[in-house]
Amino acid sequence: MKKEYILPAGFASAGIYAGIKKSKKFDIGLIYSAEPCDAAGFFTKNRLKSVHILEAKKIINSKIHAVFANSGSANALTGRVGHADLKFILRSVAENLNLKEGQILAAATGKISKRIPVDKVVKAMPELVSGLSTHDNSFPKAIMTTDVTQKFASEVITIGGKKVTVAAAGKGAGMISPTMATMLVFVMTDAAIDKALLKQAAFEAVESSFNRITVDGDMSPNDTVYVLANGAAGNKKITTKNADYMKVKKALQAVFYSIAEDMVMDGEGATKFIKLNISGAKTQQQAERVARQIANSQLVKTAFFGQSLNPGRIISAAGQTFEDFNPEKITLKFNGKAIITGGKMLDKNYKNVEKELKKRRIEVDLNLANGKYYCYLLTTDLSYDYVKINADYS
Amino acid sequence: MKKEYILPAGFASAGIYAGIKKSKKFDIGLIYSAEPCDAAGFFTKNRLKSVHILEAKKIINSKIHAVFANSGSANALTGRVGHADLKFILRSVAENLNLKEGQILAAATGKISKRIPVDKVVKAMPELVSGLSTHDNSFPKAIMTTDVTQKFASEVITIGGKKVTVAAAGKGAGMISPTMATMLVFVMTDAAIDKALLKQAAFEAVESSFNRITVDGDMSPNDTVYVLANGAAGNKKITTKNADYMKVKKALQAVFYSIAEDMVMDGEGATKFIKLNISGAKTQQQAERVARQIANSQLVKTAFFGQSLNPGRIISAAGQTFEDFNPEKITLKFNGKAIITGGKMLDKNYKNVEKELKKRRIEVDLNLANGKYYCYLLTTDLSYDYVKINADYS
Repeated sequence: MKKEYILPAGFASAGIYAGIKKSKKFDIGLIYSAEPCDAAGFFTKNRLKSVHILEAKKIINSKIHAVFANSGSANALTGRVGHADLKFILRSVAENLNLKEGQILAAATGKISKRIPVDKVVKAMPELVSGLSTHDNSFPKAIMTTDVTQKFASEVITIGGKKVTVAAAGKGAGMISPTMATMLVFVMTDAAIDKALLKQAAFEAVESSFNRITVDGDMSPNDTVYVLANGAAGNKKITTKNADYMKVKKALQAVFYSIAEDMVMDGEGATKFIKLNISGAKTQQQAERVARQIANSQLVKTAFFGQSLNPGRIISAAGQTFEDFNPEKITLKFNGKAIITGGKMLDKNYKNVEKELKKRRIEVDLNLANGKYYCYLLTTDLSYDYVKINADYS
Repeated sequence: MKKEYILPAGFASAGIYAGIKKSKKFDIGLIYSAEPCDAAGFFTKNRLKSVHILEAKKIINSKIHAVFANSGSANALTGRVGHADLKFILRSVAENLNLKEGQILAAATGKISKRIPVDKVVKAMPELVSGLSTHDNSFPKAIMTTDVTQKFASEVITIGGKKVTVAAAGKGAGMISPTMATMLVFVMTDAAIDKALLKQAAFEAVESSFNRITVDGDMSPNDTVYVLANGAAGNKKITTKNADYMKVKKALQAVFYSIAEDMVMDGEGATKFIKLNISGAKTQQQAERVARQIANSQLVKTAFFGQSLNPGRIISAAGQTFEDFNPEKITLKFNGKAIITGGKMLDKNYKNVEKELKKRRIEVDLNLANGKYYCYLLTTDLSYDYVKINADYS
């Protein structure tokens, strides 16, 4: 797995500035494949959904040739006008690429309720289309909002002697929360693979990556992961869960996890990257509930920002789930060093454990001593800068 | 209802510095009634509970004469040692007041996992007991932690020609979250009232006050509301839900609501006092879920801090509950001024509504247009100072 933005065979992309963002940074992007693609889409579960998602769901099972993305406006809570705006844009993409509107997916990120300035986007479309390149590096920039870093990853594998590439570009730094972290991710592969298997592999990869991160517990109306496969690698089509399938799945997982980790690393105002491991849970659901409550606790997050050892806040957050476990049996470790065992504080370890909190990466192991289930979650601290970014955002 | 700390007939209280807090501020307090009291107790639902609560639950149905409170240590996550510590303290209170240990309730607030310095507390006990006064003003100070303001309220009513007083002292500014906001509240009344009716009236008052506030979504292991009634007013004992019962219930509600409001006003780092009204919900549960998700959303809270109008974040938080409502039918108002009606943004009202966000008190009305249920919640914004207070706390 490499942190590089490369395009699999048959794919091209582009990104330019159209005039949506005041900052004059790139704000529209395009992915194109002349070969028709099978597609999979994973969307937010928020009751409020971007118009882009509502429209994409209608055509996700058709053959797809392009994905249009914009940043700066979420096109959510925009009602009929938002649908009309998107229709104008898709028509413009279709005309410029000689496609049908039903062959183009769209995704958006930015301020909720803000309309997209359609005229500017339509005017910029010829430039965007003419910028399409198989060696593009501008698309990942066009989807950024509060992101500080660009996010991409790729993996090259060999299937039956053929070179197969899985590549992705993503964005996400805030409004990041479980059950589909808030983000856009665009995944391309030239693998020839049965559509149902593509979906299955992508679903599992989403579960172990984007559904395992939270920055602020806030879920966006725009979360989208698109996976496109155009078969251009020329490998013998994968139609069963054989060794080739496992290779593709593994590549997807590596690429997804890398981007998920980058999102947390780039979490708004984050000074810490925290991996929470909850083990010894009675059920999978218990492990997840405990992990999410801890990860989203303002008191836990501010304690990490302050680099202060406050194990009580972690156990209290766990207890707030009302889940059935005995606080007097738990074990808690920071970067492998125990501060609580069998429910008892190890006061003599205090200074030694406190040192671990100065580090950028902190691994927290909480064993509930209640069963055999486990889950992990990646999260951040809560800093002055998080408040600043989100108080000033609009 | 007056924001005064007065003691009903037969009650005395005191507060002094014993040596728990580094700040040298008052840290132990005592309430005493020579007349035996019927008591009601409402406790945190957190799975992690303070030792004080575990012990109090055993005797809450007996006749009570005193309540000991300390700040600076939560006595939670302290295991057997914590139980022994409390036993020493209660024995000391009992000896100094000539009571039995089973007649004394206790409550604590402060850092989780920190032990109470028992020797210091026991040594200070004679001074605390000798300080008991029917005109005390030190008890409310002894229970403060991050609180900036003291919190108390009282109501004097007349029942059958007799003067009856309901009075309360409370603390709470952070770790404040629904299903029993995080806090300690000590309520005293000299009303003669049947114990079951006292509990019923207090339960309803808790529901409409302390269970309707949230500062940070974090629930403490120490939440406690004690209600003591010693009958010293000499009114004819209330044994049915008659007009006298309603008077007492109303007084309890007024006093509870006042203290709950003070807790939110004093919310850690808070610059805004926000009342959320969720109406038009399909069920009571839906109204509450939507209210809590909005109130605890970091993005909503930081937007209020930034005084920026971002209705999309509110609707997105509501949508994150997965509750069944149609975003295209909702209405949203700030201080009575509409910014969304029928799911449409009223762009022309933007500047006018934005002005309301400069105010300290903001009332938010969200109508889901989905049914007849309603609930409210009091909350705060999320500021730099909240982060500062909780990053530095330990």
